[in-house]
Amino acid sequence: MPVTVAPDLQAIVDRIAAEMAGREERGKVADYIPGLARVDPKHFGIAVATHDGRMFAAGDADAAFSIQSVSKVFALTIALGKVGDALWKRVGREPSGNAFNSIVQLEAEQGIPRNPFINAGAIVVSDVVLAGHAPKEAIGEILRFVRDLAGDDGIVIDDEVAQGEADTGFRNAALANYMRSFGNIHHPVDQVLGVYFHQCALAMSCRQLARAGRFLMHEGQHPDTGFNIVSPMRARRINALMMLCGHYDGSGEFAFRVGIPGKSGVGGGILCVVPGIASIAVWSPGLNERGNSTLGSLALERLAAATGWSVFNQREPG
Amino acid sequence: MPVTVAPDLQAIVDRIAAEMAGREERGKVADYIPGLARVDPKHFGIAVATHDGRMFAAGDADAAFSIQSVSKVFALTIALGKVGDALWKRVGREPSGNAFNSIVQLEAEQGIPRNPFINAGAIVVSDVVLAGHAPKEAIGEILRFVRDLAGDDGIVIDDEVAQGEADTGFRNAALANYMRSFGNIHHPVDQVLGVYFHQCALAMSCRQLARAGRFLMHEGQHPDTGFNIVSPMRARRINALMMLCGHYDGSGEFAFRVGIPGKSGVGGGILCVVPGIASIAVWSPGLNERGNSTLGSLALERLAAATGWSVFNQREPG
Amino acid sequence: MPVTVAPDLQAIVDRIAAEMAGREERGKVADYIPGLARVDPKHFGIAVATHDGRMFAAGDADAAFSIQSVSKVFALTIALGKVGDALWKRVGREPSGNAFNSIVQLEAEQGIPRNPFINAGAIVVSDVVLAGHAPKEAIGEILRFVRDLAGDDGIVIDDEVAQGEADTGFRNAALANYMRSFGNIHHPVDQVLGVYFHQCALAMSCRQLARAGRFLMHEGQHPDTGFNIVSPMRARRINALMMLCGHYDGSGEFAFRVGIPGKSGVGGGILCVVPGIASIAVWSPGLNERGNSTLGSLALERLAAATGWSVFNQREPG
Amino acid sequence: MPVTVAPDLQAIVDRIAAEMAGREERGKVADYIPGLARVDPKHFGIAVATHDGRMFAAGDADAAFSIQSVSKVFALTIALGKVGDALWKRVGREPSGNAFNSIVQLEAEQGIPRNPFINAGAIVVSDVVLAGHAPKEAIGEILRFVRDLAGDDGIVIDDEVAQGEADTGFRNAALANYMRSFGNIHHPVDQVLGVYFHQCALAMSCRQLARAGRFLMHEGQHPDTGFNIVSPMRARRINALMMLCGHYDGSGEFAFRVGIPGKSGVGGGILCVVPGIASIAVWSPGLNERGNSTLGSLALERLAAATGWSVFNQREPG
Repeated sequence: MPVTVAPDLQAIVDRIAAEMAGREERGKVADYIPGLARVDPKHFGIAVATHDGRMFAAGDADAAFSIQSVSKVFALTIALGKVGDALWKRVGREPSGNAFNSIVQLEAEQGIPRNPFINAGAIVVSDVVLAGHAPKEAIGEILRFVRDLAGDDGIVIDDEVAQGEADTGFRNAALANYMRSFGNIHHPVDQVLGVYFHQCALAMSCRQLARAGRFLMHEGQHPDTGFNIVSPMRARRINALMMLCGHYDGSGEFAFRVGIPGKSGVGGGILCVVPGIASIAVWSPGLNERGNSTLGSLALERLAAATGWSVFNQREPG
Repeated sequence: MPVTVAPDLQAIVDRIAAEMAGREERGKVADYIPGLARVDPKHFGIAVATHDGRMFAAGDADAAFSIQSVSKVFALTIALGKVGDALWKRVGREPSGNAFNSIVQLEAEQGIPRNPFINAGAIVVSDVVLAGHAPKEAIGEILRFVRDLAGDDGIVIDDEVAQGEADTGFRNAALANYMRSFGNIHHPVDQVLGVYFHQCALAMSCRQLARAGRFLMHEGQHPDTGFNIVSPMRARRINALMMLCGHYDGSGEFAFRVGIPGKSGVGGGILCVVPGIASIAVWSPGLNERGNSTLGSLALERLAAATGWSVFNQREPG
Repeated sequence: MPVTVAPDLQAIVDRIAAEMAGREERGKVADYIPGLARVDPKHFGIAVATHDGRMFAAGDADAAFSIQSVSKVFALTIALGKVGDALWKRVGREPSGNAFNSIVQLEAEQGIPRNPFINAGAIVVSDVVLAGHAPKEAIGEILRFVRDLAGDDGIVIDDEVAQGEADTGFRNAALANYMRSFGNIHHPVDQVLGVYFHQCALAMSCRQLARAGRFLMHEGQHPDTGFNIVSPMRARRINALMMLCGHYDGSGEFAFRVGIPGKSGVGGGILCVVPGIASIAVWSPGLNERGNSTLGSLALERLAAATGWSVFNQREPG
Repeated sequence: MPVTVAPDLQAIVDRIAAEMAGREERGKVADYIPGLARVDPKHFGIAVATHDGRMFAAGDADAAFSIQSVSKVFALTIALGKVGDALWKRVGREPSGNAFNSIVQLEAEQGIPRNPFINAGAIVVSDVVLAGHAPKEAIGEILRFVRDLAGDDGIVIDDEVAQGEADTGFRNAALANYMRSFGNIHHPVDQVLGVYFHQCALAMSCRQLARAGRFLMHEGQHPDTGFNIVSPMRARRINALMMLCGHYDGSGEFAFRVGIPGKSGVGGGILCVVPGIASIAVWSPGLNERGNSTLGSLALERLAAATGWSVFNQREPG
């Protein structure tokens, strides 16, 4: 099957949204902070930004939600821009094989998190982003970056969610302190976590998120400005990381069923990238037992089946 | 860059073989059994079978080597043919995040190995292949299957290597017994290990191995006979498993650098599949600290860079 | 309270046996082999051999039961006699802090079990006992040793239990193979396990067991023959090991509640030693969640309270 | 050998001090904070408070040192006085089988530390001591308690050491935050750690420490006032805990060699209790690979050998 933008893509996303609207099994909404717990599990949204600048959306594609761990992709991009491959001395690139907030692995590997998409790794990334800044400036930099990627100044950080994370984030505080005991966090823990919690509290719609991910389908180039956000090789590598580590301990399952690089968050959002073809955002708040959006994952499985966008699909020789 | 068979592919593989011939850093040859320890680290071979039936080879592409864990791909294919998706009740599909022979994970997950490419998972696969057979028959089935895939009846099992595995395979015996204590091995441990050790002792050249992997680029279809070895979806999923779990605890690194699904073995061989385009085998006996062929990995990185075959590369819309 | 043999010791053990007869909560009988599973949970026996050669018994003190892990004390004594302190290069002396058959610790500590009373450690001890013998001879040596300690040639090994252990002992086979992979088992695994499973299948009554433990209250001296089984220092150290490691992951609880060195087995027996005063055996087949005899532990708590025999009790200055 | 106060106890401690003065191998002084790092490894002190009110001392018995983890015994005593056995719902009583500051066990056991003498357990104890107090008051209560036990108002807290602990205590902050994520720390982490770090910074001499430990040889009774600090049963149980868990992952070794309940600290101090007979304090700053005082442990082994005070020694029947 040739990889292409299906002529009936709008019909496909409409059909997916209709199927998801009728699904009973939605999983469990994250409830560790009020700002997430009160989200209605009935929501479902999908938005597909294609390589040619079009957008195909359905469902609650314009409702803002907390992107949570999806933000790790953007923070990683900033950190790589700051310190380049030196980042990989402080964070690994291997799947974790453990629950996403496990502290065990850090003991075995002397404070080096396995990848930048588990919490510990993302906290190291926050520490890198914070370097040379006051925490407020670092948070501002992340917000401006995401707004620029999406071409949308309406994106905001949900302060209530950020505060909720801070009020309950003892495990993240444990991770940060633990890594600091190994010398792998350089700034005061409360400042690093301040950056991290605000980044996770970015509120975006599917449409905004799909737009923000476009540079990763375009080999790192901002499609609106032509500016190179990252080099082509680095864009490929971010995609590779999403494929191997983007869905906590369900990354294998996602690759197996969907076959597209993606990053999920406990807010129920998933960002996927089909290199050269599309940037996709889905959202449904109910989570499966691995912490990934139940309907979001299913919708992407449907989309991949309908479009042939799995990277493991046969590609037409040119 | 469009995905295609480069017009100068022979020149590319010749250049790679020449570069590898000049490399000093080759890593350490596996030395736990005599049959592997005495292999000359100077070897390097590469063979690329393309979708259109051509073969591009260089270096020691016709020298037979012990394919070791690369055989797990073929055994998995047989097991899926026998029991289908029921296999996934006994083996997971997630990266392991641990050394490839770790027993710790099995304790935490009650005897269910994380994926079919770590030793524990491959032993469960052997147990499935063994069902309804005497061990000799099961070994014969694997050998016939690989010969058929490669279209080459000259492929043999190196009995000395198989015996060496049996003489030293106490850790695999521990894994098998441990899983049997959880009820996840159904046949006598020595029979299961007999099958497993013989499968690992398959001796193949790069050319033979690249040919044996062709069905995985052709959506599961045997290119010579047109027979469906596995369904297109299952072929994609085997490729996904290779991407996420094919290189032990270096799978992330390989995806990051090469971006092509592959499976390595401690004999120094790697089989890679570019869906729709090519089946690739490389061999160089020296291993890096993760147990993957040092020059084999580097050669594949060079090949991916020269051809644009990374699945994370931008694809041309059709 | 002075440490002494209470003048009313027979009344104490009678009272304890009476209380235990009325207890409803008895825990769960080990059921992994038929020879253990069919034992009536109603049994309770107690026997106290005192320093002055008297015996105080009550309940089913003359019924034979499978001593299981209690046998590790006798096997350790033989092994120390054979290789002395060189044993401690192959086995540690620290509490395990894990389930008694955990394989995780062995990975972290390179095949060296933490102490001789967890299964892995006892298997190394069996390997030492086996040295220079055929398995049958080693088993015979253990049997003769225990008969001599107890002064009772009627003690036998229950072959059905030994066979049951062999038929289901996959986890022990895993431990043995795993340690052999580290070079810490020197003989063929099936021979070592043969010795181990037969040793665990020793069938003894409380009276026989209490007699067999007398050398440990007498600084290593056989009370009947005056022969030094082990040196006084070694006897003290075996007692120390029982105190710290004798009850799997309930050793702390036992020290806290009873305060007397002891070793339990999944057959429901416990052997305790009060240095200079008494050797005690109790038996009741129901186990608590840590794998120690529920009523046996309670009976010993009662006995310690009534006699002041806890080693943590105030001692009268001489 | 009867348990007694040897008539020549002063000669024994003099001889031990003389031997230790000549020892070259002293281990490594803790150097993670300046207040510990600059202590001269040449120090050695010993003080033995006997049941009859006498004191036998030698070496640097009057030099104050940082008692560090030895303070856990006193804090545990206060916490048991406050909440009684309810404490054991929040802290276990089993040996840890891991490094003393391991965070792994906490993950496996859902935030419940294995015993009150590993750091995590002691932090829970601090949380209990803090209840109903401002941190300063809680610290004051601990100081007053230790002064009262020793009958010595000259005991102080070394503020520089407490500050040093706070400046570097990231691993303890990780433990506290981690347990708070499980709900097993009830007060703000910085307040709990403030109490903990000050408690560890108690500066005492061997003489003061031996005096402060006297209540544990006297079944919980203060020898100067006759007041019951804890009940006899609780005193026995604190002694049992010291025996099983008092020396980090060297508790088995200590029981094996010395056989007396004790608690060590990284300042090089050890407090030991011989029930009914003696309270002993030794100090030498160099630590062995388990974090226990090298010469302190050896001195206690010598003292136990000379006096027969091991609880595993044969006791004279009364």
